[in-house]
Amino acid sequence: MHERASDDHRRSGPAHKAYDALCAHMRQLMALERVQELLTWDQETMMPASGIAARAEHNAAVEVAAHRLRADARMAEWIGMLTAEEAGLEPVARAILRESRRIHDRAIRIPESLASAIARATSHGQVVWAASRRANRFADFVPALAEIVELMRNEARCLAGPDAGPDALYDALLDAFEPGARGAELAALLGSLRPALTSLRERIAERVAMRGNAPDPAPISEAAQLELSRLLCAISGYEASTGRLDRSEHPFSLSFGPGDVRITTRVRREAPWECLYATMHELGHALYDLGIDPALAFTPAGRSASMGIDESQSRLWENQIGRSRAFCGWFAPEIARRGGGPADPAALHASVNRVAPGFIRTEADEVHYNLHILLRLDLERALIAGDLEVAELETEWRRRFGREFGIEPPDAARGVLQDVHWSVGVFGYFPTYALGNIYGAAVATAMRRELADLDGILAAGELAPARAWLREKVHRHGRLKTPTEIVQEATGAAPSTAPLLDYLEEKYTQLYEL
Amino acid sequence: MHERASDDHRRSGPAHKAYDALCAHMRQLMALERVQELLTWDQETMMPASGIAARAEHNAAVEVAAHRLRADARMAEWIGMLTAEEAGLEPVARAILRESRRIHDRAIRIPESLASAIARATSHGQVVWAASRRANRFADFVPALAEIVELMRNEARCLAGPDAGPDALYDALLDAFEPGARGAELAALLGSLRPALTSLRERIAERVAMRGNAPDPAPISEAAQLELSRLLCAISGYEASTGRLDRSEHPFSLSFGPGDVRITTRVRREAPWECLYATMHELGHALYDLGIDPALAFTPAGRSASMGIDESQSRLWENQIGRSRAFCGWFAPEIARRGGGPADPAALHASVNRVAPGFIRTEADEVHYNLHILLRLDLERALIAGDLEVAELETEWRRRFGREFGIEPPDAARGVLQDVHWSVGVFGYFPTYALGNIYGAAVATAMRRELADLDGILAAGELAPARAWLREKVHRHGRLKTPTEIVQEATGAAPSTAPLLDYLEEKYTQLYEL
Repeated sequence: MHERASDDHRRSGPAHKAYDALCAHMRQLMALERVQELLTWDQETMMPASGIAARAEHNAAVEVAAHRLRADARMAEWIGMLTAEEAGLEPVARAILRESRRIHDRAIRIPESLASAIARATSHGQVVWAASRRANRFADFVPALAEIVELMRNEARCLAGPDAGPDALYDALLDAFEPGARGAELAALLGSLRPALTSLRERIAERVAMRGNAPDPAPISEAAQLELSRLLCAISGYEASTGRLDRSEHPFSLSFGPGDVRITTRVRREAPWECLYATMHELGHALYDLGIDPALAFTPAGRSASMGIDESQSRLWENQIGRSRAFCGWFAPEIARRGGGPADPAALHASVNRVAPGFIRTEADEVHYNLHILLRLDLERALIAGDLEVAELETEWRRRFGREFGIEPPDAARGVLQDVHWSVGVFGYFPTYALGNIYGAAVATAMRRELADLDGILAAGELAPARAWLREKVHRHGRLKTPTEIVQEATGAAPSTAPLLDYLEEKYTQLYEL
Repeated sequence: MHERASDDHRRSGPAHKAYDALCAHMRQLMALERVQELLTWDQETMMPASGIAARAEHNAAVEVAAHRLRADARMAEWIGMLTAEEAGLEPVARAILRESRRIHDRAIRIPESLASAIARATSHGQVVWAASRRANRFADFVPALAEIVELMRNEARCLAGPDAGPDALYDALLDAFEPGARGAELAALLGSLRPALTSLRERIAERVAMRGNAPDPAPISEAAQLELSRLLCAISGYEASTGRLDRSEHPFSLSFGPGDVRITTRVRREAPWECLYATMHELGHALYDLGIDPALAFTPAGRSASMGIDESQSRLWENQIGRSRAFCGWFAPEIARRGGGPADPAALHASVNRVAPGFIRTEADEVHYNLHILLRLDLERALIAGDLEVAELETEWRRRFGREFGIEPPDAARGVLQDVHWSVGVFGYFPTYALGNIYGAAVATAMRRELADLDGILAAGELAPARAWLREKVHRHGRLKTPTEIVQEATGAAPSTAPLLDYLEEKYTQLYEL
């Protein structure tokens, strides 16, 4: 029934027609969602400043059109007819049916009045958040955030049912980003990382106290950082015919279709690693999108399996490849040639992997990163459960941060106000970053086992074999498999934190001579 | 009932509600149409080459959503209720009602399947056209163009009725660009220019044969042309906060809202006037869009009155201002300072106004320009009438061109393949360029009469007074008035070809000492 299954004649008649109609309908919806992303890309990279009011009109109009498609009553009919024969469907059709059902169910459970209240509150919320971050005053943000939390709790109740308990409420929101995941399980999983990460952090701190840390990197001109970023694109096989690299305030990657996946990076002269590793991070996302089987394009199965899997690909490309000792062997002379440093690969390796406690998640090293996530996961679960008031959030953040990191954020901008997520109603996203680290390490460990002499290849700046392996094991499947299935099949084992902890222990034991 | 008429209490109840509902609905439609234009802008300026297939999906999905809004049965209800009290509506509401009716009437006549077939065929058509122009082979383009012509004939039949004659078919397409215009009347009007233009052309040719013509301009580096283009933006009051200048194969201007109107230009080292006057041309369009009363934004009255009026503003800015002797007084030293020439204003004036028969419309001087339009008008009328096959188009172009210009295009790229319009399904647009010349000359003549010492101001590079006058007389009205009303009120006389012919006669008599 799917185009790749057109020789499957077992089903015909009404179900076949329902499938074709559903696919045509979803094709439009997927295209509109890509248009929404193009509006975002343009806003962040190209739009003149005064275009913002018109952009709100554009976004609202496309969202209304997309919502109508998602909530269209005909979808329920098509889905009903296909569900009756779900067991007999081949995998692509089954995935398209499953994803269409998820999309439709979410859309019809949320009343239009709530959806538009959320749209208004989050659009307003982001503005208030930005102003309050600039003013460095959390109190300014409290009323807007309190409204958003209340609306998202309402949305969760619509999705999970009126009698849902606190865990079920959070899970309903999480499900949008990590299908099938459970907040309590994630909290336990990520919590299990804490002892090892804390121990590593403390052992490193001891060594640093004794013999100092890697120095700040030397500044690199903006032009040279962009040239190096383009070089990273080139060796990653990310070509100008299917993508482009622009600058934006916050780096991101967006896919508009199988031949058009664009990334951005941020360039600051005095923070060259921020730019170069943002480029590698976004390349990891982009290669994933470009690697999804193009036959799945514009179907709901043609997207990344989950945000956790998506993030695994960006973190893998950024860290397991880009920050490896082997890759630094290739990268150091390229950086030196453009006026940066250090030119010595071992020194570059130490510099880009420097461990130091800090307040900002996006600047965190691999040891501290997941601790930042744990903090956010606990706090957002408590907010959605109703166990924590927004008015107490800053105090609670400070208290928890101090306990976890041994330092207290000096202000709100470097604390509770640093992330945009909650201001736009995004709850349940943070844990997918940590899942990405866990999945990414597991997949990278398997890749390293299977690809002979990976380090030799990386040291030559050859990334094609790694990309090909990832495409085969992860990218091409899109959403045909669950996150767990993908990790299981790619690594031969159920997802676990062991590969991440082993990787971190080995890497930092060597780097800091622990 | 419109926001600017909220103190009008004569109407209330159902009609008031119908008006509010209609405005909210049209607001969404206008926003989706701007999104469509953003997809075009992106495709022409930023999109990686392989993004084209996905872009066809985006275009089709937005077009389906827009078409649904245009054809929505509720529009007929709202329009019906308001039409019953049309006489009592204030002007803004009347214009919104009239335009909404036009839009709805056109839409309900075009089936959704045809609309999306056209979106796909034209998105594809443009790519085939570009490739075929690069390869300089019209035959490559024939199948795509034949499909597009057939689809547009279908659209015309849907709009004009199954029994419509050839003239009515063409008029139905023309109406989208020049409301109320008739192809046969335009052919007669533009045809009436031919004797005067031909006479002027021949007298100039005689002088050129005797004493030669202005030489080719010296090449100017691409960077300097872009710098001069940015200077033209600056003196036109076109600011980076509300627009941007990019490069594209075919220069254009698009508006995404009152604070975001973008232009493009084309840069070739050896043809500096092409770039600089394309920039002036597109600036004329952009200033118009930026000058429309912002209270009309995202209403169907908040657009240019017609493409003829739109083109009058671009041709006026390009020719009556940019190619004037006075403006050359300011422009010549700016060009010379950036390595171009001639530095002598009179010589620059002669160079940018050099009259010579040529193959390319967009490079044509003001004497030949309308003859290029006449050719295209006749050919597209014949294509839509079914009197001319696409396969014969190149031969017919060559034959007609030879007769009109006395020279034959040496190849397809300099003949039938030079314009993008037909490849994107745009039939009925070409005559609006000639209308623009006619309207533009009439408006410029009135402006010159009313603005004291316009030449003195232009010679100082001051364009703000001209822009302010045009905003007051033309821009701000949007679609509140018809093209004829705008010209009548701005000039004090009904539109006629006399100001254009007088202007050309005077200009070239002086330049060529006829």
